[in-house]
Amino acid sequence: MNSAASEPALIGLDWGTSSFRASLIGADGGVLDRLAAPEGIMHVEGGLFEAAFTRLLAPWAGHSDLPVLASGMITSRNGWVETPYVGLPAGGKELARAIATHQTTDGRTVHFITGLASETDGAPDVMRGEETQIVGAVAMDTSDGCFVMPGTHSKWVEVSEGRITRFATYMTGDVFAALRDHTILKALMQDAPFHDEGFRLGVASGLSAGSELLHRLFHVRSMPLFDKIPAGASADYLSGMLIGAEIAGGSAGKANRGPVTIIGRDDLADRYETALGIAGLTTRRAEPDIVARGHFTIAKAAGVIA
Amino acid sequence: MNSAASEPALIGLDWGTSSFRASLIGADGGVLDRLAAPEGIMHVEGGLFEAAFTRLLAPWAGHSDLPVLASGMITSRNGWVETPYVGLPAGGKELARAIATHQTTDGRTVHFITGLASETDGAPDVMRGEETQIVGAVAMDTSDGCFVMPGTHSKWVEVSEGRITRFATYMTGDVFAALRDHTILKALMQDAPFHDEGFRLGVASGLSAGSELLHRLFHVRSMPLFDKIPAGASADYLSGMLIGAEIAGGSAGKANRGPVTIIGRDDLADRYETALGIAGLTTRRAEPDIVARGHFTIAKAAGVIA
Repeated sequence: MNSAASEPALIGLDWGTSSFRASLIGADGGVLDRLAAPEGIMHVEGGLFEAAFTRLLAPWAGHSDLPVLASGMITSRNGWVETPYVGLPAGGKELARAIATHQTTDGRTVHFITGLASETDGAPDVMRGEETQIVGAVAMDTSDGCFVMPGTHSKWVEVSEGRITRFATYMTGDVFAALRDHTILKALMQDAPFHDEGFRLGVASGLSAGSELLHRLFHVRSMPLFDKIPAGASADYLSGMLIGAEIAGGSAGKANRGPVTIIGRDDLADRYETALGIAGLTTRRAEPDIVARGHFTIAKAAGVIA
Repeated sequence: MNSAASEPALIGLDWGTSSFRASLIGADGGVLDRLAAPEGIMHVEGGLFEAAFTRLLAPWAGHSDLPVLASGMITSRNGWVETPYVGLPAGGKELARAIATHQTTDGRTVHFITGLASETDGAPDVMRGEETQIVGAVAMDTSDGCFVMPGTHSKWVEVSEGRITRFATYMTGDVFAALRDHTILKALMQDAPFHDEGFRLGVASGLSAGSELLHRLFHVRSMPLFDKIPAGASADYLSGMLIGAEIAGGSAGKANRGPVTIIGRDDLADRYETALGIAGLTTRRAEPDIVARGHFTIAKAAGVIA
């Protein structure tokens, strides 16, 4: 994964709610080294972000002359420096223009990449951090199209001519965990190996649920009750149903518009790949280092590095 | 509410998961007296149902010669006597034929009314207890049509020629509580007075959500974030959205088929009345004593009382 023989040029921080990730980025955009810590912004004691910043980057003290770009929830109200959202469409150039700089007490400059806001169906939507990943993904293969970012709050992102033109958040992962652990369905959930058939049945149900999702959810209880699926498949049936319902909404009208690019954790990304396949959509996987490439691309556009 | 001058003829038990309710029913079907206790089947210690039965009915020891009909989750796997489901269509006669009798050690006979099972969209659905309410509601005004029973697991029930021909369960209340208390939305929920406008906006969003419910749920977070609704309206916006989504599914194709009869608790039933109105559906409210009338109707059909 390391880029060969490139000089360090930039430090990129992906500082989210639950984790801190840093990349040492070379002059050609490749990743030379990485750091990761479970110190997301909710875990920084007393909001002492500068102290955490200095401590977490201590292994790279020899690179303290490099510029730093930071993206993620670190720019939210509960973060280090709150920055206003940028509207759509937005790509690397718009994000570069919106960079907010902050001086630390020891004289380092942190360049904060802000998030995006959009409005669809009369209601707003937001992201902080994902925009930088998308900029990196686009820079790595210059492709437009639809990107899905599985997670607690999945994002579906439309890119046209290199800029984000539309996005929507889905509560899929958060809803899954709440339903699994805090409803009548809890009694059915087992710590069992992945049940492929149960997952696929769930995907099919979710894809066709339309407005009936609140009804279909009860099938997670009734299907094992009538031995239509084994009890050990209940969690994967629920997982499939919610991912299927997300895809039905997120992919509407995208059947003939090229592959959906999947960004995200591997096990969850595998489920999305299976489910998107059941929905008749082609998929591809994003490169692993897109967030660092996003930092690099925005740093270049902002003139932070040459 | 008491029926005038009728002799006691029957004891009806509505024994559910979380509560025990008894009606002393007269020879004309009217309710002469009531008992209620928070001793649902999950709260009967050690599964000692007969002891609970004797103790809870002690106030009516003078009526121990009366026949007893019991409905609800008391006939489920975790109840007193498990009875098999009856299929559709089913009304008072079918339920009367399926009655299971049980002798207590002191010689009383309990007549258990079983529940119903159906299959739609290739998946099963079940009810235990609601069928007796519907039989009572139909007996009280002999009307066919659509009934909605708001609750933790709402039921939508179609009645034709006095028999239940179709029903579907919606996880609305259970999902609402899980999302309110166990997702990112929790931070927004306030103990505030009912916010009518927030509720109505939620209903409109839910009614039009289609397959986008998992996306619309994120608006419960983003709407107050952008001051589109006050923070104190978040819970009612979420409530409205889920009820609206339920109605969009449950009422599909029912626009010109007469009023929807609402059965259930008053505060929740009020929300459904408002939401059904926003959806353009006319409503009416069921009589309060439908479950006792259901016991009476089924007891007559079974020949338990003359």
